[in-house]
Formats: sequence, C-alpha cells, structure tokens
Amino acid sequence: MYDRIYNFAAGPSQLPLEVLEEIHKDLFNYKGTGMSVMEMSHRSKMYLEIFNETKENLRKVMDIPEDYEILFIQGGATEQFAAIPLNFFKNNKADYIVTGAFSKKAAKEAAKFGEVNVIYDAGPDYDHIPTNDQLKFNDDADYVYICANNTIYGTEWHEYPKCDKPLIADMSSDICSHVINVRDFGMIYAGVQKNLGIAGLALVIIRKDLIDGHKENIPQLFEYDNQVKNDSMINTPPTFAIYVLGLMAKWILSKGGVKELEEVNKKKAKLLYDLIDEDDFYKGHARKDSRSLMNVTFNLANEELEAKFVKEAKAAGMENLKGHRSVGGIRASIYNAMPMEGVEKLVAFMKEFKENNK
Amino acid sequence: MYDRIYNFAAGPSQLPLEVLEEIHKDLFNYKGTGMSVMEMSHRSKMYLEIFNETKENLRKVMDIPEDYEILFIQGGATEQFAAIPLNFFKNNKADYIVTGAFSKKAAKEAAKFGEVNVIYDAGPDYDHIPTNDQLKFNDDADYVYICANNTIYGTEWHEYPKCDKPLIADMSSDICSHVINVRDFGMIYAGVQKNLGIAGLALVIIRKDLIDGHKENIPQLFEYDNQVKNDSMINTPPTFAIYVLGLMAKWILSKGGVKELEEVNKKKAKLLYDLIDEDDFYKGHARKDSRSLMNVTFNLANEELEAKFVKEAKAAGMENLKGHRSVGGIRASIYNAMPMEGVEKLVAFMKEFKENNK
Repeated sequence: MYDRIYNFAAGPSQLPLEVLEEIHKDLFNYKGTGMSVMEMSHRSKMYLEIFNETKENLRKVMDIPEDYEILFIQGGATEQFAAIPLNFFKNNKADYIVTGAFSKKAAKEAAKFGEVNVIYDAGPDYDHIPTNDQLKFNDDADYVYICANNTIYGTEWHEYPKCDKPLIADMSSDICSHVINVRDFGMIYAGVQKNLGIAGLALVIIRKDLIDGHKENIPQLFEYDNQVKNDSMINTPPTFAIYVLGLMAKWILSKGGVKELEEVNKKKAKLLYDLIDEDDFYKGHARKDSRSLMNVTFNLANEELEAKFVKEAKAAGMENLKGHRSVGGIRASIYNAMPMEGVEKLVAFMKEFKENNK
Repeated sequence: MYDRIYNFAAGPSQLPLEVLEEIHKDLFNYKGTGMSVMEMSHRSKMYLEIFNETKENLRKVMDIPEDYEILFIQGGATEQFAAIPLNFFKNNKADYIVTGAFSKKAAKEAAKFGEVNVIYDAGPDYDHIPTNDQLKFNDDADYVYICANNTIYGTEWHEYPKCDKPLIADMSSDICSHVINVRDFGMIYAGVQKNLGIAGLALVIIRKDLIDGHKENIPQLFEYDNQVKNDSMINTPPTFAIYVLGLMAKWILSKGGVKELEEVNKKKAKLLYDLIDEDDFYKGHARKDSRSLMNVTFNLANEELEAKFVKEAKAAGMENLKGHRSVGGIRASIYNAMPMEGVEKLVAFMKEFKENNK
C-alpha cells in the first residue's frame, strides 16, 4: 500500500508499520492538542503524560522492578561507555568481557578513567560467547561489563555471566527481543534505534542502590544521580524519540509482550539458520551455541558472489543485507519490527539464489 | 484545516506547517526509497544525501565560510557547556558574560574544568545586555563566552562584544532569526529545538584553526577533533532530527533567507512591544535597548491577572504563554515559525484583555 521494502539494516532499522501509522495520524494535531508531539514543550502537561506513560509501559514490557530507575539520555551507547566508569568506579577497576566491536570500544573508553581488566576476549574471530567456566572475575572489580548481542558478528549471550558484582549489559541490539530478568543486572542500557525506536536516545535502567555519587567534576549530563533527581530533564530531552519509544512499548504490549515476540523471533531466526545449515553454500559466522536471534551473519564463497547477492536482494525489495564494513559478508538484521513475511521472503530468495549460483 | 493552535512555547516550539507537511508526505516512503527517514541506516547512501544536503543548505542559510566546520552533536546546549572548556582551555581561563540563566549555567559548568571569570553579570534582574564599554577582557582568556538571546528574560545582544579572543556564542534561541557575520565568532552553537527543528540535536559551528586538541581522557563524544574526523558520526547521530533541521534550512531558503525572516521577525516583535509601550497595563521586563526579537516577556498587575490572561489566551487558541517557572509573568516566544497572523491574533487578544481588565 505504501510500496515499502523490507529493511534488514542493523540500525537504525525498520519500524513496525503500526507505529509509523500512529505517528502519521497525529503528526499535525496530537489527540486534539492542536500541535505535533515534536512541538510540545517538554514541561507541558500534555507532554509529561506521554513521558510518564512511556516509563510505565516500559516497566510492564520489561517487568522492571520499582527499585530500578528508568532514564532517557542522549548520546547513544557511546555516551554510556564513558558514563558507566565515571559513575560506578569506586575501586577504579572493572572486568570487561570483550565479545565484539562494541564491548571493545566500551573497554577502551572506560580505560581512560581507571583500570579495565579484559577477563575474556573472543577475538580475533568473535564467533562465540564464553561459558561461565571460562570466566574468572576479579574480587575488587566495581562491576562486570558485557555487550548482550554483537550486531556486527551475529553472536548473542544465551546464559549471562554469574558473578557477585553488578552486571552491566549493553542491550542495544537485543533489548525486548527475548525475556530477561532485570534483577540479574545492576544496569541495562540500549541505544533504542535498533529494537525500540529511532536514533538519538538511550534507555538506561539502573538498580537504585547503585546510584551513589560519581567522579568529581564530570559533565553534569553524565551524572546518573543528577539525571534521576531531574527525571531525565536536566535539559530538554529528545522529546520525539521518547514518544516513539513509547509507541514501541505500546506496540510490544499489543503483540502480547516480549514473551510472544521471543517466540516469533526464534521462528524467524530458525528459518534462516536452518537454510544456512543445509550445506556450505551459506557459511554462518557465529558458532551454533552463540548465534544471535537478531543479526544473522554469513558468508558466501567469495566477495563477488556476496556483492551479487546484495544487489539481487535489493532488486527484489530487500535492503541493507551487506555485512558491516569491518567484517564484510552478509548480515540480515531481523529485529522485532521485521515481520515473519520479510524473513520468509528472504529465505525464498536465498534458496533461489543458491540454486542459480551453486 | 488541521485545527492547530498557535504555540508560543519557548522550546520545543512551533514548526512551520510546510515542514510538518513534508515530514507527513514522506513518512512511510521517503522519495521512493521504500522506507521512512527514521528507518534509514546513517551510513546508507540515501541518508548521507540528506545529511550532506543539510550541511550545504546551512552554509547557504547562514553564509558559513569554508574555514568553519559544521557538527551535529547530541546532548543539547548543556553538553556544549562542558565540551567548550574541555576543548578550548589551554591557559585554563575564560571570560564569561552572564546575562541570564543559561550563560550562568554555562559558566558554572566550565568552572569544573578551569578558571572562569565572570566579567559582567546583568543580575539580579537580567533585564539588559552590557555595552562594549562595560566589558573588560582578560589578556590570558582562552575565549569569551556569551548567550546571544536570553529566552527566560527576553533580552538579546544587538551589538556583540568586540574582543580579540575567540568569541563563543550560544544562539539556541535566536539562530537564523536575524543576519549575523559568522566570521565574528570562534564558535556558534544552538540546540535546534527553538528555531531550527526538534529536540535532541545541537548544531555546532567552529572555526577550523580553533580545533586543536583537547584535555586528555575526556568522553570521546566531547572531542571536537574526533567529531570532525568522523563527520559527526563517531556513533549513530540523531538521524531524524538532522533531517528536520535540513527541512528547516530549506524552508528558510524558500522564504527568501534569513534577511527576509529578520524583517518579518522585527515586524512581529514591534507589534507586541508597541502595545506594551502604550501604557503600564503590560509591563515589559527587558530594557528597551536590550529587547529580544524572539521572546517577548512582560508582567501584568498581579499573578492572578497573569493566570487569567494565560487561561483566556489558551481558550482562544494561543498556548504556552506562561513565563518561565523561575521568573513568572507572561512570555510570548515568536520564533521564525510563528507566522505574522499568530502575533496579530495575540495582539488583538491583548488589546481586548486590556479593555476588559484595566
């Protein structure tokens, strides 16, 4: 009806059509207010209703206990790479588990502010996630840091580290794609542009007792206690991005919640991995036990064939299947908003492409 | 047609209807790409066209010389309060001119990182802007800092400080509302949610020779040299907010440019100030020589009457006329997007209100 394509981009990525329809419907006049959400003062009653409803719905969607704060912060995950050590360093030491490009970047940024111990590095191939018996934590670490899903390599944690330190997880690429227990974490955060909305906003969830001061003389926007005190409004928050996050939360609830989405996500991923496992025409990058439900990465025999694949998929209405510029190959990002039909269409295309090119 | 009201909010504030119409038209399928701008990968060809066109059009709109960089950064003006000293402190000293709440906040934040000399403070009333003969600059200051327009108090610089240090101006509330000479400044920046778009994005314009290192071990997003090297894409930028900024730049060009808008803005402000000057029913806050073209602030005889004014204006389709919570009174923010008809309607209402209540 709108002549849309299936967008397999790693993020920003496809939004549910229902969410775009909601934005479209209220763009000139949000529910009789006479203005667009984009035009609302962040301190106005009408906007605060949207803001508070978004927080409430996120609590429902993720089952976030009352002893966890919800913050909306600009600067994406990259800003949190610095904010985390600036707030949580007390012994000035932390354990980082490096399973891909973003945990590596997070460790590098944190090392500016204290001692970072990389207790496991899954490189150079980054095709797997360590098991708990491979991890030895430092007794004096202030926290343990992971990236829950590695967008670039297509690996994902299926059993989180068991440690007695606060576990901090970057869930930018798999938040709300499967059920988690928030209580297992000291802090969860996510740039929302993959699974929960549009670029320009990070959702930050922190156990309240961990919000306890920060390093002196840091930029005020990085101070979690200050953000909490001001309910994420030290300055004007990214009002429209928060509204879209709220629409995403409502959309998840309308679909039956994360548990239902997880079932669909498993089916979507299985369709692709089953085809990959048929023979060695498509070579999966991730080890089977570490495969991501969100980013399916694989290679073909050579770069020429991969380029042909991407080109022909695009012509058939499937966009952004090229792997990340740092690793190449093919990557299909199948976040919550990617419908089953999109994956079925991709699988049909892949079967035909294999027939024609093997 | 859309039953919209006139929105006099200080920011986020009203957008031009033409800009909303453009967003609305392309929301499901941006110019045949099959996706919304919100869904585009920031590294895709289609998005980079939008990104680069936005920069080019801003150069035209503001006549930005080639020896100035244009950056798009998250975190609003408040993030720049810290980034400025973190990048420009060499002698670790700067001169700040405090003419309102935001220059005061900027000075406080900068004092975390070095010596801040407030060489003029217009408080406690903040009803004026100093003249050049009132300003004595320090020889060893790294830069001189001003806030070009004081949203809360309704004052605005009409003659900028003459100094031989780089002049840095926060133009969040008057950027592109009147013609300036970019070469008079070392750096200009603005949270775009008042005059140039939606919340979640700061436009930063810096003379290239001033981008020359920064303090060690600061968050990477604060490093101007790093932002320049990565063309504002150290991480995912706020893609949709940049697109709206681009639409605003095109809209300004379609209106004949900033010079034409300045003429309209002067007429709009004059309508209000002439009425205020008629007698003392409406008492203007700012001294006549320091009046803002963007934020017209005034008081009535008492708070009750002010509350009545706000309530009746709202009933007549004019929203957000209450002054800032820190100062009270009435404030009419009449940014570029507020059409002449909106101001004429307000003036007619004010005349009638005066008749009925004097």
